[in-house]
Amino acid sequence: MSAPRLLKSYLSGRWAEGTGRAQTLVNPATEEPLAEVKSGGLDLAGALEHARKVGGPALRAMTLGERGAMLRRMTDALQAHRNELLDLAVANGGNTRGDAKFDVDGAIFTLAAYADLGKGLGEVKVLADGEGIPLARNPRFHGQHILVPRTGVAVHINAFNFPAWGLAEKAAVALLAGMPVVSKPATSSALVAHRILEVLTEAQAMPEGALSLLMGGAGDLLEHLGPFDVVAFTGSSDTGVSIRSISPVIKNSVRVNVEADSLNAAILGPDVAAGQETWDYFVKDVLRDMTQKAGQKCTAIRRVLVPSDRADRLRDDLVERLSAVTVGNPELDNVRMGPVATAGQLEDVRAGVAQLARDGRLVFGSGDVKAVGVPAGKGFFTTPVLIEVEAGAPAPSVHSREVFGPVATLVPYSGRADDAAELVGRGRGGLVSSVYSEDAAFTADVVLGIAPFHGRVFLGSAKIAEASPGPGTVLPMLVHGGPGRAGGGEELGGLRGLGFYMQRVALEGSRPVIEKIVR
Amino acid sequence: MSAPRLLKSYLSGRWAEGTGRAQTLVNPATEEPLAEVKSGGLDLAGALEHARKVGGPALRAMTLGERGAMLRRMTDALQAHRNELLDLAVANGGNTRGDAKFDVDGAIFTLAAYADLGKGLGEVKVLADGEGIPLARNPRFHGQHILVPRTGVAVHINAFNFPAWGLAEKAAVALLAGMPVVSKPATSSALVAHRILEVLTEAQAMPEGALSLLMGGAGDLLEHLGPFDVVAFTGSSDTGVSIRSISPVIKNSVRVNVEADSLNAAILGPDVAAGQETWDYFVKDVLRDMTQKAGQKCTAIRRVLVPSDRADRLRDDLVERLSAVTVGNPELDNVRMGPVATAGQLEDVRAGVAQLARDGRLVFGSGDVKAVGVPAGKGFFTTPVLIEVEAGAPAPSVHSREVFGPVATLVPYSGRADDAAELVGRGRGGLVSSVYSEDAAFTADVVLGIAPFHGRVFLGSAKIAEASPGPGTVLPMLVHGGPGRAGGGEELGGLRGLGFYMQRVALEGSRPVIEKIVR
Repeated sequence: MSAPRLLKSYLSGRWAEGTGRAQTLVNPATEEPLAEVKSGGLDLAGALEHARKVGGPALRAMTLGERGAMLRRMTDALQAHRNELLDLAVANGGNTRGDAKFDVDGAIFTLAAYADLGKGLGEVKVLADGEGIPLARNPRFHGQHILVPRTGVAVHINAFNFPAWGLAEKAAVALLAGMPVVSKPATSSALVAHRILEVLTEAQAMPEGALSLLMGGAGDLLEHLGPFDVVAFTGSSDTGVSIRSISPVIKNSVRVNVEADSLNAAILGPDVAAGQETWDYFVKDVLRDMTQKAGQKCTAIRRVLVPSDRADRLRDDLVERLSAVTVGNPELDNVRMGPVATAGQLEDVRAGVAQLARDGRLVFGSGDVKAVGVPAGKGFFTTPVLIEVEAGAPAPSVHSREVFGPVATLVPYSGRADDAAELVGRGRGGLVSSVYSEDAAFTADVVLGIAPFHGRVFLGSAKIAEASPGPGTVLPMLVHGGPGRAGGGEELGGLRGLGFYMQRVALEGSRPVIEKIVR
Repeated sequence: MSAPRLLKSYLSGRWAEGTGRAQTLVNPATEEPLAEVKSGGLDLAGALEHARKVGGPALRAMTLGERGAMLRRMTDALQAHRNELLDLAVANGGNTRGDAKFDVDGAIFTLAAYADLGKGLGEVKVLADGEGIPLARNPRFHGQHILVPRTGVAVHINAFNFPAWGLAEKAAVALLAGMPVVSKPATSSALVAHRILEVLTEAQAMPEGALSLLMGGAGDLLEHLGPFDVVAFTGSSDTGVSIRSISPVIKNSVRVNVEADSLNAAILGPDVAAGQETWDYFVKDVLRDMTQKAGQKCTAIRRVLVPSDRADRLRDDLVERLSAVTVGNPELDNVRMGPVATAGQLEDVRAGVAQLARDGRLVFGSGDVKAVGVPAGKGFFTTPVLIEVEAGAPAPSVHSREVFGPVATLVPYSGRADDAAELVGRGRGGLVSSVYSEDAAFTADVVLGIAPFHGRVFLGSAKIAEASPGPGTVLPMLVHGGPGRAGGGEELGGLRGLGFYMQRVALEGSRPVIEKIVR
């Protein structure tokens, strides 16, 4: 067998080959090597400066409408290569075809949403932020806030679980705001991101310097950040802490956005009885979040809060459904759940399950699995795992250890909204939690109780079951992020997301002059 | 002479005396001791927890309208003690009566502005953020962003130059948002802040736990911060870096707002000739910023950009006016400028002047001064200082060293907007810069050129001269803060300021239920 293909980085407007030790990208179902990356010897400071000096001015010369058109070209280019990207996601990401669509179509959908936003903003380069403000009795003395693009570079560091969506959701917002991007995908699953850059550069969708890609390790990339740069990171809390601790990041007040760990909760209301539509909907959403992408979604339900008097029934229903999940090679149509992304990830899941199990009792899945369609002993597979804790048990790990795999815990509670909120709050900040109930008063109490701990709260109801993708799906028009353990970040949310990449400035002075600037 | 009065802290709902080594507060004009503080032995973790557990729930139980009424009670209480506060500011802050009014009236004005905002919001506890968002063809599936108070405590660390305004502008926003505050004034000038807390607690203006005051050092205060707490700091970049580096702050994703150094620039347009109204207005604003509070304003003009062909004339005009400034005991009516705040501050100013002078030439003020109305050799006085650099000289210190005193540099430039913007940008991020011109096109070019480096841009024109307080004044309805060197923070800006103390949450679900929650 020949050596696998070496993937280049796209920096300073050209493809560049790294040097040094190779890292190998594999198919996590078969462990077959797919490609290699080397990230030594690249001029990262130069790449950042190229983005700032070439990409930034090109983007800032465009109106928001023109940047929207650029995002539309990117959308179209990816759409034209969708099948190819899906195949790569299946091969390199352990994704079933459905998982791959979730990633790739999510990327296309998010780019398209920001393309539309740009189109709607049209021929402006300066965004008005709010209305004009009279500052004195003299109506000439006037204030107006505006948003202008930051003049630095946006560094994006993405997680392994969404190589397509992670790249696109961050890049769409930064590019529409007018900031050039250097994107670093996680190495293990980077084939998809790499192909995306090939497709986009072949299509000449963006001006030179607007979007770069760094394959492999980040090296000293963040050591070169200056006062007008930003970093957006998705991944573990530990890495988030490292990024926030980098001296030039702190000294230069570099804006940092972190999406990190989250013990997302789903709360079943006391009004919902087994067999009701809402019950089935709840079970379906929990199942989807446990198995989709083998549970490797930062928004996946990790804690299932159920009124104590129906915890047994819910457990039995979940166990029954989990028993029917076929685990194996995601290329096969009958496989519902593929492997986790890497050997390290599998080890981490196993250690996490062992820790959670000490807080409760394993009710489904030992972790060990006979995966279908793969050579014996190959692949990073686990069963889904459900752990049940006793009502009232402190179970500290359940509220603090995010096991990034197909793993959830069942936590019985009293059925009171305040008790549910208290349990959810033990997670010390998360991305999204959800409440499934047809009782509007209970729903409102839970929502207001848990809102301070989250960036998003999902209100599950049979009435929206058909229209909704569930709490695990991030929509471009709603913010994504959360306080505390979740990293304190905020992305997307339609135009809100642009704020991170722009400088808000209060203009203060003569009204006619200001109105000429803002229009 | 008896020992000066020991000032207590107000923590956990009562006045508490510290232990350990005393720090002495003096009159910076006479060096007469005024009071002492000791900050050892205080239970700071307990004080934070009291704010979270007692103050937070009390504030969150109030509507925004009720919190506005609370701010109105605070406004009224301070107004009733205004003269007393002005006297303290003169005695402990080196303030002239005008300087003292700038601080104390600024505090009252800002509290009143947020009281009005609260009143306008009325009987709501949840703020809607933007409009509702249709999420699918099914109109029932709906999104709405809301803002809810964070459930932690807001720690405010203020600078020595504005003991009244600094406390009030931060507290007004946090309290209206629904977060309890622990405020730490700078020790040297803390008499005013201390008296404010006495006045407010005597008036029972706030519920228990809503507003605490820590006198003296911060000790281990910030080591106890958790995921739903925030810190807002105003002061030096170095201290800002220290705060951002504290491990629990990083690990818990504590929100940090920093207002730090800034080399604010004022640019004179090439259309403005000596003797014109705009010229005189410009000279007046530069003079005010150099001498008001002895130049100790974070927003004061530090760099004066003037077209080369009229630099001599501007220098001569400024020197003539500076010669007429009487420096001395600020209690005297004929004194225009008092001392700087401390001996350390004076030393810092002198070192800074020496550094700047190496980049150019001292054209006014040796620093040494015969201050009127004080015992010989007493007080922390300096003359105003003007330094002129040569056109085109690199003068790196002029763009990087903020001398926090009555010191400005004159920087000739070509008269082109892009050259002005380039020079301003060398400051690597600031709070506010200004352009004085009657040429709308030049003004617009400068504004857009320098906007990315600032939180505020002031457009000086003779047409608003009478209505405007100049670039050095922070208005509550406009944001205050700036990127890079200025710390990357943002305060005030009307309702915008509340965002820092609130969690933005996307609600996603059934439209009627969401609308019932938000109203």
